[in-house]
Amino acid sequence: MEKDSLIVLSGGMDSVTMLYDKIDRIALAVNFIYGSNHNLRELECARLHCKKLGVELLEIHLDFMGEYFHSSLLEGAEAIPDGNYEDENMRSTVVPFRNGIMLATAAGLAESRGLRTVMLANHGGDHTIYPDCTPEFIAAMDAAISAGTYENLSLYAPYTNLTKTEIAKIGKSLNIDYSTTYSCYKGGKYHCGQCGTCCERREALAQAGITDTTIYEDITD
Amino acid sequence: MEKDSLIVLSGGMDSVTMLYDKIDRIALAVNFIYGSNHNLRELECARLHCKKLGVELLEIHLDFMGEYFHSSLLEGAEAIPDGNYEDENMRSTVVPFRNGIMLATAAGLAESRGLRTVMLANHGGDHTIYPDCTPEFIAAMDAAISAGTYENLSLYAPYTNLTKTEIAKIGKSLNIDYSTTYSCYKGGKYHCGQCGTCCERREALAQAGITDTTIYEDITD
Repeated sequence: MEKDSLIVLSGGMDSVTMLYDKIDRIALAVNFIYGSNHNLRELECARLHCKKLGVELLEIHLDFMGEYFHSSLLEGAEAIPDGNYEDENMRSTVVPFRNGIMLATAAGLAESRGLRTVMLANHGGDHTIYPDCTPEFIAAMDAAISAGTYENLSLYAPYTNLTKTEIAKIGKSLNIDYSTTYSCYKGGKYHCGQCGTCCERREALAQAGITDTTIYEDITD
Repeated sequence: MEKDSLIVLSGGMDSVTMLYDKIDRIALAVNFIYGSNHNLRELECARLHCKKLGVELLEIHLDFMGEYFHSSLLEGAEAIPDGNYEDENMRSTVVPFRNGIMLATAAGLAESRGLRTVMLANHGGDHTIYPDCTPEFIAAMDAAISAGTYENLSLYAPYTNLTKTEIAKIGKSLNIDYSTTYSCYKGGKYHCGQCGTCCERREALAQAGITDTTIYEDITD
């Protein structure tokens, strides 16, 4: 298969799974550093997997987001609410139009490199609180990327309607070591185990039947 | 009218005209510095008009474009072709998906500020060489911005099907001094008078019946 794709790679469970899942098509990975609490923890994971698979990784700084955008995700670990991912209080973690900005930048980079497809690992569990993860957004952004580029590039987001558990099952079949991915919105050395993304991560790994070797701060035994 | 809009303001003829034309709705202007030859010349004009009208101006650096994108617009004055704007050789000046990146960033900024609309001054003359100026792109990007934001923000691009001459006529009716706007792709202190954007600028001002007080380098008398 032709390697004609760029993947937006955070270093979290979903994008790392897609990296392994679609490696035959991936020519370039891009990580965005926008000032979130967990950006650099995720980046370490992105670097590790790209090195392992021999994929070039670009690290793009979007400093304006930390400077001008409002989101608890950009305001330190104390600002992150505990609880389930679907809860209303998780709305404070939304970074306005974050996926729009990352996808537009990725599309420009892809066209500059002669690539044809931008891959994003948004998934079904994101829909309830993140408008820029919904099927409607993905379809419209795909149309915008196609219309706005000479070579009619496309957006490929095959996990849009999968649950995180279904993604973890794909990862299990690919023997991905999820202890080398990072999820916690608080951004500490170890996963807190209590924030929305930690809850979601634990549940997905358990439901997929994966032994979770992640170190969580709230487990003391 | 409620001031609920953000305008993408380069400091060129089109966006400065829209700034005056739609001032009743504009709460914030954003200038993007992405490493083009003429960025800082345009920025000076953007600052001047925002100061005059009392509009807040954010200056956003997109350093990754200069670093990773390929375009003669990012490679110094010598790389800019002379000739008409519609010519095939002007294609080298395309910065891949530039408007997509600027609009996505503007949408995130607008939502962070509680604004509802993003304004862009693309126009009909841009269509032939810039895919991210076409009505198809604008419609798709509008849909993406709406779907991807909580408050369903919108994109407003009322000059999409106007010629530059028609825009200049709007400016004439608003008494805009176009000598305080900047167009030249070469980015010199004075307009070169020969590149595609200089040709287009001269023609539009002449056809609108505006006395062109721009200093062009190729006029020696």
